[in-house]
Amino acid sequence: MKKVKVALLGATGMVGQNFLRMLASNPFFEVRNLIGYTSVGKKYGEAVEWIVSQNIPEEYIDKIVFESDPKKIDADIVFSALPGSAAYGVESQYSEAGFPVISNASAYRMEKDVPLIVPEINIDHLELIKIQKKNRKWKGFIVTNPNCSTIALVLALKPIHDLLKIKRVFVTTMQAVSGAGYPGVPSLKIIDNVIPFIEQEEEKIESETLKILGKFNGESIDYANIKISASCNRVPVIDGHMESVYIETEEKVNIEEVKDALRNFKGKPQELNLPTAPKEPIIVREEKDRPQPRMDRLSGSVPGMSIVVGRIRRGIDEKSLKFIVLGHNTIRGAAGSTILIGELMLKLGLIEV
Amino acid sequence: MKKVKVALLGATGMVGQNFLRMLASNPFFEVRNLIGYTSVGKKYGEAVEWIVSQNIPEEYIDKIVFESDPKKIDADIVFSALPGSAAYGVESQYSEAGFPVISNASAYRMEKDVPLIVPEINIDHLELIKIQKKNRKWKGFIVTNPNCSTIALVLALKPIHDLLKIKRVFVTTMQAVSGAGYPGVPSLKIIDNVIPFIEQEEEKIESETLKILGKFNGESIDYANIKISASCNRVPVIDGHMESVYIETEEKVNIEEVKDALRNFKGKPQELNLPTAPKEPIIVREEKDRPQPRMDRLSGSVPGMSIVVGRIRRGIDEKSLKFIVLGHNTIRGAAGSTILIGELMLKLGLIEV
Amino acid sequence: MKKVKVALLGATGMVGQNFLRMLASNPFFEVRNLIGYTSVGKKYGEAVEWIVSQNIPEEYIDKIVFESDPKKIDADIVFSALPGSAAYGVESQYSEAGFPVISNASAYRMEKDVPLIVPEINIDHLELIKIQKKNRKWKGFIVTNPNCSTIALVLALKPIHDLLKIKRVFVTTMQAVSGAGYPGVPSLKIIDNVIPFIEQEEEKIESETLKILGKFNGESIDYANIKISASCNRVPVIDGHMESVYIETEEKVNIEEVKDALRNFKGKPQELNLPTAPKEPIIVREEKDRPQPRMDRLSGSVPGMSIVVGRIRRGIDEKSLKFIVLGHNTIRGAAGSTILIGELMLKLGLIEV
Amino acid sequence: MKKVKVALLGATGMVGQNFLRMLASNPFFEVRNLIGYTSVGKKYGEAVEWIVSQNIPEEYIDKIVFESDPKKIDADIVFSALPGSAAYGVESQYSEAGFPVISNASAYRMEKDVPLIVPEINIDHLELIKIQKKNRKWKGFIVTNPNCSTIALVLALKPIHDLLKIKRVFVTTMQAVSGAGYPGVPSLKIIDNVIPFIEQEEEKIESETLKILGKFNGESIDYANIKISASCNRVPVIDGHMESVYIETEEKVNIEEVKDALRNFKGKPQELNLPTAPKEPIIVREEKDRPQPRMDRLSGSVPGMSIVVGRIRRGIDEKSLKFIVLGHNTIRGAAGSTILIGELMLKLGLIEV
Repeated sequence: MKKVKVALLGATGMVGQNFLRMLASNPFFEVRNLIGYTSVGKKYGEAVEWIVSQNIPEEYIDKIVFESDPKKIDADIVFSALPGSAAYGVESQYSEAGFPVISNASAYRMEKDVPLIVPEINIDHLELIKIQKKNRKWKGFIVTNPNCSTIALVLALKPIHDLLKIKRVFVTTMQAVSGAGYPGVPSLKIIDNVIPFIEQEEEKIESETLKILGKFNGESIDYANIKISASCNRVPVIDGHMESVYIETEEKVNIEEVKDALRNFKGKPQELNLPTAPKEPIIVREEKDRPQPRMDRLSGSVPGMSIVVGRIRRGIDEKSLKFIVLGHNTIRGAAGSTILIGELMLKLGLIEV
Repeated sequence: MKKVKVALLGATGMVGQNFLRMLASNPFFEVRNLIGYTSVGKKYGEAVEWIVSQNIPEEYIDKIVFESDPKKIDADIVFSALPGSAAYGVESQYSEAGFPVISNASAYRMEKDVPLIVPEINIDHLELIKIQKKNRKWKGFIVTNPNCSTIALVLALKPIHDLLKIKRVFVTTMQAVSGAGYPGVPSLKIIDNVIPFIEQEEEKIESETLKILGKFNGESIDYANIKISASCNRVPVIDGHMESVYIETEEKVNIEEVKDALRNFKGKPQELNLPTAPKEPIIVREEKDRPQPRMDRLSGSVPGMSIVVGRIRRGIDEKSLKFIVLGHNTIRGAAGSTILIGELMLKLGLIEV
Repeated sequence: MKKVKVALLGATGMVGQNFLRMLASNPFFEVRNLIGYTSVGKKYGEAVEWIVSQNIPEEYIDKIVFESDPKKIDADIVFSALPGSAAYGVESQYSEAGFPVISNASAYRMEKDVPLIVPEINIDHLELIKIQKKNRKWKGFIVTNPNCSTIALVLALKPIHDLLKIKRVFVTTMQAVSGAGYPGVPSLKIIDNVIPFIEQEEEKIESETLKILGKFNGESIDYANIKISASCNRVPVIDGHMESVYIETEEKVNIEEVKDALRNFKGKPQELNLPTAPKEPIIVREEKDRPQPRMDRLSGSVPGMSIVVGRIRRGIDEKSLKFIVLGHNTIRGAAGSTILIGELMLKLGLIEV
Repeated sequence: MKKVKVALLGATGMVGQNFLRMLASNPFFEVRNLIGYTSVGKKYGEAVEWIVSQNIPEEYIDKIVFESDPKKIDADIVFSALPGSAAYGVESQYSEAGFPVISNASAYRMEKDVPLIVPEINIDHLELIKIQKKNRKWKGFIVTNPNCSTIALVLALKPIHDLLKIKRVFVTTMQAVSGAGYPGVPSLKIIDNVIPFIEQEEEKIESETLKILGKFNGESIDYANIKISASCNRVPVIDGHMESVYIETEEKVNIEEVKDALRNFKGKPQELNLPTAPKEPIIVREEKDRPQPRMDRLSGSVPGMSIVVGRIRRGIDEKSLKFIVLGHNTIRGAAGSTILIGELMLKLGLIEV
């Protein structure tokens, strides 16, 4: 199979670096344009402060950072690793010009005609693309990837919602510093400390989850009828967001059934055996003190693409349960999931090459 | 005033060290007997691996570690800094022999005839002492101090419960490593990590809170009719337990009224102006990202004796609220609160000298 | 005594915050002008991201951030907390206009006619002021405070140099993140890590030390005839620079004599009993594993103003020794020492009020 | 090739776990006996508190922990992961009984007739085995692996010593907490801290290095004529020991020649292409701020088996140089190197199977 040509928006930032690290060995994609802003014309190896692994993959070091211009890029697909603020104006230039844009940015996530996709959960929402193209008179389109905390949470909720119908969710997160990008959280603020606030994070979790678990009604998404309350904290951990989750359900909870539902959960990416799809999207651990970020963040057959759920136990009454879920925020929570959306759309024929 | 003579059980452990650090400058108490186990007969300065502050207070360095023997100690009151496991058998020897024992250990906390006291909240529970002495035919008695996470939580709950009647509480803790004593949590387990489990901690929070907020009915305590679910985590922080709290109430919540209730909360210790009583038991912060353990754990007029509440905001509906509370686990959560019980009982004439 | 009026350059940065924290309770000085750049006209409490202690001292919260203009300030003395880059141009405006400028910045430290002062070591270097004023035709003058690592090192070297004549010094530092200011070192770079490089730090240690230990020859400073090699590392510590020091001497080393020389070391600030002068500039610890940053950084009668030396022991041969020295980088290493220079010059009549 | 049968002494400790993790995929060896002490008869998966990676390799989970008895084991070779204290008595039982014992413990390292081996450096020292067997009338023998800090240091010194003849070495280490085993360093002692002391570590570095770089004279080892001074510190890092090294040489230093010598350094393990031998034993980095433990500890073709040297630069004079070296303390510094000795001896026919 001929590789699909990729342009990457925001190639020098931390999220962009994660895209490149994962795309370097991806059998579907080939990065053609590294698009940057402050460092156009420089060699990537000189423009970037590489922070996400030991070494920059060889193939990128001498590539020239490209200016952002939809007319000049040589790509079949555009991945966006832009920060939310920059993404709004830039991404639409590419979709208008006819490119399929798959974005990790928050800018368009909650727009009515923009799909917000977790590949194992709601690929039917991709139907929104047609509506989006009509609404906006775009030749291309934008598909978005959720917030890093949302993805781990919603992957754990989905099989439980299918089984027991969830009514309410109370979640407290303990999030890694890599979630804030680079330079991100100053060490002076987080060593020997916890910061009980992350800008806009609670709002994202509370809203995005309902859209992802919602139903496409032919025109738009009917949000899931769940109430969610999120409290977000930053902890001195490099990678891996932990979430302490309490759930109220309509049905009575049988803990073993819940574990089975989580363990057996699979989606289209597993069925299609996509390169970035982990064999088990959800790993259930039985130890009393797992998952832990440093020990378990790289779990799964595609390291970092499985979420890990542990301490599944009853809540206050028989229609409730609680657990801990861990997701690798820069892999399953960002670059990895976005790439997986791309792989899926390609296989489903939703991107023309 | 002549100082009251103190014997300290468990003097060489980390909790014992915190007692000694605080008692060194206490105007009510004078430590006579440092009771240890493995190091009887040694000088304290040689027996202890001092870990809680820069230097051992001078006065203890040459004191000889004393054996545990109720017949030999020279004390008006016994403070216990024993671990839960050891406390059961040892503390009763002292109460049987006629000593007032004020214990930070968990052993007797939930016994029906043993008061579990937060000095600002439930001093009427001290009435249980009479029943205890009768039941057990003890000349002395045991009064207990709650778990470190419980104290911070229940101090925040009390004024809200008085105002709005609390129905349910969902709490996720992020606890400091000093809560596990010394040597406690291995660094190999907690650097760049979170451990989502602390032995017996959730059970303690869920049960002790109900007893403390309960009512003395003349014979025993009627537990508060509140449902609590706790999820406990260890984070790489030296001191200061953070708790993310979600509360459902019977009454509608007015956030400003809640803040006022917390800010204005006072108890007998403040009224009596006790040496270890902070002027404000509860400090409310308005910043979007406070309290934080490293910044705020030593808050208050008696450093570490005030809890700090922040991010007070509405929950899912109008009969709910959520916030973060921080308490210094080894001061307000252990030695400091236990000493404050002693000061209070002394002033109230409940301890004979 | 009427308080001396102070203008502070760089008031909103982390070093500036440390100045303000220490000046808030200083009996000699009163801060009149908080000089900032990006936030002129705002209230200080709104302009600053306060990071150095729990709360901004009350008195500064509503003060208006002042523009940098030597004609407008109301001050007897100017303290500079500017970064090195900005200091060069700005500080000279104030000295030219007649102000005594005492600066923590690196800009002028190594200029021939500018005194680089550690108050306990080389106050005779203040004679350079006359030469400086003549050379530069300034009505005022600039006096500088050394680099944070240099101060701790040179305080430990001075009594040893007087005793044994030092020939060579090999020093490896382990420096706290607060040394990089705010935001400074990203947490993503330093959690579970060591960074073996700090821009220009080795050069500063290697050169400044020789100037401070040098002799004023009536015209300029003859640098000390010592060879120094420094290797600098950043470690995940909030405050407190550790330095592992190996020294070769001309005389044979007697370890007990070295300890005595360090313990008995005093300077003019101690003689004059200045408010920011610690009773013991150097504390010697005998334990095998001290000093440690978290335990010992606030040592001394003025917390953070004493350095702590430990593990003093023989080197490879009898004309060598090695030890660990710890200095609080933002107190003794920056704001505290600079303020102490001010106090000293005031008492010595070198600043007109 | 039929796999060689291994018995592992100290299988449940942290070093033992690292052996098992690495041996699980080793083509030469097959672990037959997991020898423990407190947990004999239990399944390994229940006996161990697994700490070194995400999961225990499947093959060990149900293996029964075996008692230590040379008569009962089914092995061709014995690896020892015992702590130094226990190793002395136990290891000799196995060597006496005829087993080749390759030990990571310190017990026998400095005995005159015991080889202390770094496989790339001094395999000729294995000649000592004959003398050892004669001296001790053992049917088997003991070969030892150096201290974790020593290995990284001596690998960096060897090519430089060959090139320039080293006279003196001043080294300050910054060592990871995993070097202390499990539970090892309490988190309460090391978060936001540095501990400037590691029991017996400086002595080990100063003596072992000279033995390894020494020459076999037909009877014993003539120690290298180098003077070494070590100062050892513990830092809050999980894995990877950093060492700040200053070297005085007899010859003038040419930095580029030094880099070439390090880069081109190879030994018998590379020549024989052994499974645990990294292609490059020494990786030289040119960035100004590398190596760093978290970024570089898993460097090399066999992750963790290459040391990384950076910041190679001139010292005080032209016959000196300095640099930073990083070695993965539990891989190259312990289990990995010990296994590599085993592979090498097997290939060289020094172990009969």
